[in-house]
Amino acid sequence: ADLEAAKAKAVVCAACHGADGISVAAIYPNLKGQKEAYLLSSLKAYKAGERKGGMSMLMTPQAMALSDADMVNMAAYYSSLK
Amino acid sequence: ADLEAAKAKAVVCAACHGADGISVAAIYPNLKGQKEAYLLSSLKAYKAGERKGGMSMLMTPQAMALSDADMVNMAAYYSSLK
Repeated sequence: ADLEAAKAKAVVCAACHGADGISVAAIYPNLKGQKEAYLLSSLKAYKAGERKGGMSMLMTPQAMALSDADMVNMAAYYSSLK
Repeated sequence: ADLEAAKAKAVVCAACHGADGISVAAIYPNLKGQKEAYLLSSLKAYKAGERKGGMSMLMTPQAMALSDADMVNMAAYYSSLK
C-alpha cells in the first residue's frame, strides 16, 4: 500500500477522524490502529451504500470519492498508526 | 451505564472482539477505547438492519439479541477499556 499517498489524502479524513486517527467527536470512530481488513471492509460497505443510519449520510459520499486503490491505502495507513 | 452487567454479557462478544477489545481477526474491529457514542450508533444501526455487507450477517443477529440498556452498557464498557 502507498502510505505516503494515503497520508496526503487523509487530510480530508482528519476533519472528523483526527490527524492522528483519534476522532474529534464521540460520534465519529477512532481509526488509529484499527484492523486493516475491517477498515477496508467498512469503506467498501459505505461506497456500496450498504451502510445506512448513524453518520452514514456523511461518510458515504466520502467513501464514494475514493478509488479502490485509495481505500486500500487508507486502510493500511490508519491501521499503521500507533 | 452498568459496566458489570456489560462485562458479563461481553463474554459473547469476546469470541470475535477479544476479551480485551482487541479483535481476534483482522476482519473484526477492535473495540477497545473506541468512542462510546460511535459504538452505540453502530449497535443501533446493526439492530435496525441498517448495515449490510462486510460481516453484517454475523453482527446483526448479535445486536438484535441486545436490549437498548444492553447496548448502552456495552458501548460504555468497551469505550472504557484502556
